[in-house]
Amino acid sequence: MADRNDPPRPGEERLGHDPAAQVDAGVTFIGRLRSGWARGTAPRNLTQARASGEGAARIELAAPYRRGLAGLEPGQCIWVLYWMDQSRRDLIVQAPRHGSGPRGTFALRSPARPNPVAMAAVRITDLDPEAGVIGIDAIDAFDGTPVIDIKPWLDGIDIPPGAAPAP
Amino acid sequence: MADRNDPPRPGEERLGHDPAAQVDAGVTFIGRLRSGWARGTAPRNLTQARASGEGAARIELAAPYRRGLAGLEPGQCIWVLYWMDQSRRDLIVQAPRHGSGPRGTFALRSPARPNPVAMAAVRITDLDPEAGVIGIDAIDAFDGTPVIDIKPWLDGIDIPPGAAPAP
Repeated sequence: MADRNDPPRPGEERLGHDPAAQVDAGVTFIGRLRSGWARGTAPRNLTQARASGEGAARIELAAPYRRGLAGLEPGQCIWVLYWMDQSRRDLIVQAPRHGSGPRGTFALRSPARPNPVAMAAVRITDLDPEAGVIGIDAIDAFDGTPVIDIKPWLDGIDIPPGAAPAP
Repeated sequence: MADRNDPPRPGEERLGHDPAAQVDAGVTFIGRLRSGWARGTAPRNLTQARASGEGAARIELAAPYRRGLAGLEPGQCIWVLYWMDQSRRDLIVQAPRHGSGPRGTFALRSPARPNPVAMAAVRITDLDPEAGVIGIDAIDAFDGTPVIDIKPWLDGIDIPPGAAPAP
């Protein structure tokens, strides 16, 4: 991931402003991700995290939000939405190291984006609602990354019509 | 959708604080959704919006962000992340009108949640990157809803292993 202070790579374009300085609404952190990853050791994406065999992780929810877990079950797939608080927000065209030339930020899943919200589709491996701890099969986020939402994954709406791959 | 000032329904639980008053990070609006929906007429979800035949919509991106569309193509599936700015944020257990009893907010896709971020998996029907206009096949959001991110939909990461339905 590009460091916040890296010079642009060839083909990259920056916004003329820092989106972090233009606050239209406020996000509140509801918990944290606990993972084995830190800057420099993190996998490139969720698939790599799973393949590593070291991607298992957990979510620790802050106390006021734990009642919100009622109805979730181990084995269920969920979305974890998290705030990539170490990402730069001013790159609008990027040249990923492993990509095929520069592309717009909205054509990429890069963590560098105007609003650094990531979403990971994961499976609940175990669940302690009273403690607010949700074990998940994998995550690619740094240890300590703030969580902003959890939603059930639903095949009927999360796979767009016509987009399902062959089994 | 519950109105912000509705009294709680039986079985519902509220947070002891308003998450909107606890700002840990700032979201910046990058554009707006244009749809035919308003409070009172909106469909219950994206599937209903598609089935209605009136769900087609567009995203209008603010000028600084339009370069971020480079590399997207009509026909491609994308995630639209939007900020449900008319939703209440203090319900942690909810009793949906059409549900089977109270459930935690994180077991529901209800718009009422501590951080009112919604994600919709949609298909690009047409694209004018210079004007910042993206036609999409459907959306269930109110007209004027703020957009906070666009990402490519990727079957390899957006369908968790073992979760793909039979075709």
